[in-house]
Amino acid sequence: MSSTTAAWVNPLRDRRDKRMPHIAGPCAVVIFGVTGDLARKKLMPAIYDLANRGLLPPQFALVGFARREWADEHFSDVVREAVEQHARTPFRQEVWDRLSEGIRFVHGDFDDESAFERLAERLRNLDEERGTGGNHAFYLSIPPAAFPVVCEQLSKSGLARNHDGCWNRVVIEKPFGHDLTSAESLNEVVNSVFPESSVFRIDHYLGKETVQNLLALRFANEMFEPIWNAHYVDHVQITMAEDIGLGGRAGYYDGIGAARDVIQNHLLQLLALTAMEEPVNFSPAELQAEKIKVLSATRLVEPLDQTTSRGQYTAGWQGSEKVMGLLDEEGFSTTSTTETFAAITLDVDTRRWAGVPFYLRTGKRLGRRVTEIALVFKRPPHLPFDATMTEELGKNALVIRVQPDEGITLRFGSKVPGNQMEVRDVNMDFSYGAAFAEESPEAYERLILDVLLGEPSLFPVNAEVELSWKILDPALENWAANGHPDPYVSGGWGPESAFEMLRRDGREWRRP
Amino acid sequence: MSSTTAAWVNPLRDRRDKRMPHIAGPCAVVIFGVTGDLARKKLMPAIYDLANRGLLPPQFALVGFARREWADEHFSDVVREAVEQHARTPFRQEVWDRLSEGIRFVHGDFDDESAFERLAERLRNLDEERGTGGNHAFYLSIPPAAFPVVCEQLSKSGLARNHDGCWNRVVIEKPFGHDLTSAESLNEVVNSVFPESSVFRIDHYLGKETVQNLLALRFANEMFEPIWNAHYVDHVQITMAEDIGLGGRAGYYDGIGAARDVIQNHLLQLLALTAMEEPVNFSPAELQAEKIKVLSATRLVEPLDQTTSRGQYTAGWQGSEKVMGLLDEEGFSTTSTTETFAAITLDVDTRRWAGVPFYLRTGKRLGRRVTEIALVFKRPPHLPFDATMTEELGKNALVIRVQPDEGITLRFGSKVPGNQMEVRDVNMDFSYGAAFAEESPEAYERLILDVLLGEPSLFPVNAEVELSWKILDPALENWAANGHPDPYVSGGWGPESAFEMLRRDGREWRRP
Repeated sequence: MSSTTAAWVNPLRDRRDKRMPHIAGPCAVVIFGVTGDLARKKLMPAIYDLANRGLLPPQFALVGFARREWADEHFSDVVREAVEQHARTPFRQEVWDRLSEGIRFVHGDFDDESAFERLAERLRNLDEERGTGGNHAFYLSIPPAAFPVVCEQLSKSGLARNHDGCWNRVVIEKPFGHDLTSAESLNEVVNSVFPESSVFRIDHYLGKETVQNLLALRFANEMFEPIWNAHYVDHVQITMAEDIGLGGRAGYYDGIGAARDVIQNHLLQLLALTAMEEPVNFSPAELQAEKIKVLSATRLVEPLDQTTSRGQYTAGWQGSEKVMGLLDEEGFSTTSTTETFAAITLDVDTRRWAGVPFYLRTGKRLGRRVTEIALVFKRPPHLPFDATMTEELGKNALVIRVQPDEGITLRFGSKVPGNQMEVRDVNMDFSYGAAFAEESPEAYERLILDVLLGEPSLFPVNAEVELSWKILDPALENWAANGHPDPYVSGGWGPESAFEMLRRDGREWRRP
Repeated sequence: MSSTTAAWVNPLRDRRDKRMPHIAGPCAVVIFGVTGDLARKKLMPAIYDLANRGLLPPQFALVGFARREWADEHFSDVVREAVEQHARTPFRQEVWDRLSEGIRFVHGDFDDESAFERLAERLRNLDEERGTGGNHAFYLSIPPAAFPVVCEQLSKSGLARNHDGCWNRVVIEKPFGHDLTSAESLNEVVNSVFPESSVFRIDHYLGKETVQNLLALRFANEMFEPIWNAHYVDHVQITMAEDIGLGGRAGYYDGIGAARDVIQNHLLQLLALTAMEEPVNFSPAELQAEKIKVLSATRLVEPLDQTTSRGQYTAGWQGSEKVMGLLDEEGFSTTSTTETFAAITLDVDTRRWAGVPFYLRTGKRLGRRVTEIALVFKRPPHLPFDATMTEELGKNALVIRVQPDEGITLRFGSKVPGNQMEVRDVNMDFSYGAAFAEESPEAYERLILDVLLGEPSLFPVNAEVELSWKILDPALENWAANGHPDPYVSGGWGPESAFEMLRRDGREWRRP
């Protein structure tokens, strides 16, 4: 129940409701692509965790759809194994028993009309037997190429229609196209079947507590917002670094690359939340309006040869493990030009951010797994210290640690103990985990529940997706016209061109 | 060597010198009141610690002056015992051997001219034998009533004169008078013998690393100064709370009280460093100019009956120990009106602080030993959250933890993990001790060394002392005219009138 739709409610009751956890109403979730990694490692465990936290209704049903000819019981075993291996919360038999009663399986191909008729039939039965009330969420955990056919089948079988006060929603996972044109086509196909208000695009970064906390940090406090602008901020660095390589993921990744896989969605969403103005309130419409506004103001800095960098990892050492280069990974062509590292420079053309570059980077096989947003501040306009006393003083930084070790770091100068006024950088850390007794739910728990509640705040809309491609496309085109990505050694921090990109501006990347 | 006097030095040599520890030149320290607690617990250990750190010259000499008829050897044993019990650094025989060779004792009364002739004689001998070079620091660790006679004797015996490039300095401890008039008289007496540049007034709070770090924090960083003003700060709280009582200290404390003992010196100095403008540099003259300026702008808020509070502790529990009230403590009159708790409200009439009250409080037998400076920020002008989501959100605070557990705390609102945008206050801590491998020296080490180096930055000058009395006097007069302090139970946080004082302003004291 969003704050806008709750406006008619008695204020006292409303007040009480808001402190209560929001529990999903009767419904069924249908997962397409149920045999994939995402379903097994994230979706099924998240559904169990929600049930375990009492956030799913007793009538809840889970339907798997895939090619294999599994019986309901076999699928139920598959779910149970996934839950036992990957759920965040402890396994409880009584929760499992109730959940498993609502587990069904439908086998079929995506273009098989009769399979969708069987699906519709089983959902009707569930509505009657179990009381799922005609509310269905279709989770497309499948390659984007299959979105059109599945949407079409859902439409044909009547499953896409909202009728008689019940809802049908579709959940889709990135990549939402591979450039602006294809994203527009994809949105057109999806929206021809589901109205935009029934489309939930998953960007699991937005389900992370630390990302949502960015809004609390900025707008619930008096301390941070006054310095959150071009008067005080020198530049912003948004980093998503992974230490893993792409072994076994060629099918998904080759031809896609780091920019499409991470920058277009996760990093530009983080930029939007970092750079946007304060919304009037946190209703979905107000929040989206601000994100769209700031993305509209965002553009690549030119010349792109100097302000962007892309790389491809070569053999090297990841800790004590010797790892191979991308071109030796199974499934990748030995002439693949897919980048595994990408960095871009953006300007946000608003009064708040004019002249403050936003540097975004992401890569595989980097030194460490870390995602962070760092506001790096200007040096003070004047330092009343002897110059030798501030040699170890860098620029102040406010860092949102998105993962792992979620929290906030402030970096600032402090006096070195002793008889002189010598100043050195120190870190002050806030740990999200240590501060709250409440354990943070997984991003997928939050997002799946929000789908079931019809709460769209954390899902990028159409316009955001298209604006993000519009921002990124010129870099993609420039890279496509310019041969091979720069090599970088696995276990390092990307190609020389990425370092040079900041050096040219008189700055340097944080070593997170 | 201060940065101003070093201006003639070759820049390269100067640069190298500044990174080197500053070592005192040849000199002798004469301690009057050598049998007192301060000398035994702080001064002698600090001198040993300086020697142990290599910051005293091999020629260094320590001379005790007191009434008892001790031989040099006996005094040396007294010093050794004090060092072994109270020094910060480990006992090292070779350091002690070198130090003890320069230890002398002179017995006599403060009004005994011949005793000061003997002192002068012994110092001349030390200058010759040991090479102390005619440089002497006279540390008056004695009641202020005895300052005039000792200064007069030092003058008569020729010991107060600087001559032939050597120096004689006097070090005095609070209380520097008991009101403006008496402070002026005292300064007059001292300055008639020692020029102001040879007078070092100890306020040991200024020797604390955390207090000096306040300057680094404010002026070496870009993050804090923009919010360090009336636009964002709601009010400032400066607290020095002690858990101990006054058993055995009646002779010093009765008739003096908390305001004279702590607010006039420590707390107003902390206020000055918190509220002052940025100095041009950290030369003593520039720093003093800013402190004097801000103290000139500081005044009590009226009506004093509502904006100040004083209290006297009664029997209660300190942790698991039952403790007596002040009036039952040995040496205090059963009708004593001496306050053991004092709180005042100040305005700082500058553009930066107009409308921001500074609340200062200090007391004995409070809940916990803690000294802190807290900038409490305004609430954000607008909160885009549902009102029920911010019920546990207080005001932001930036807290300088002076002692114990030296460091900085930021208090701000953070999202509570879970499906709603609920915000709750959290603390983010920086620990000075954990951040630096270098152990912080004791305040007295820093201050004694600065006396020997002739570095006056950390010593309040005449004008600061007199301005502080001028600020405080109206409160003292109002209290004197209004009977007995308000009682408060030992182990609590002061009298009801102190709570009421902030409640009237719609605020509350931090519970540190």
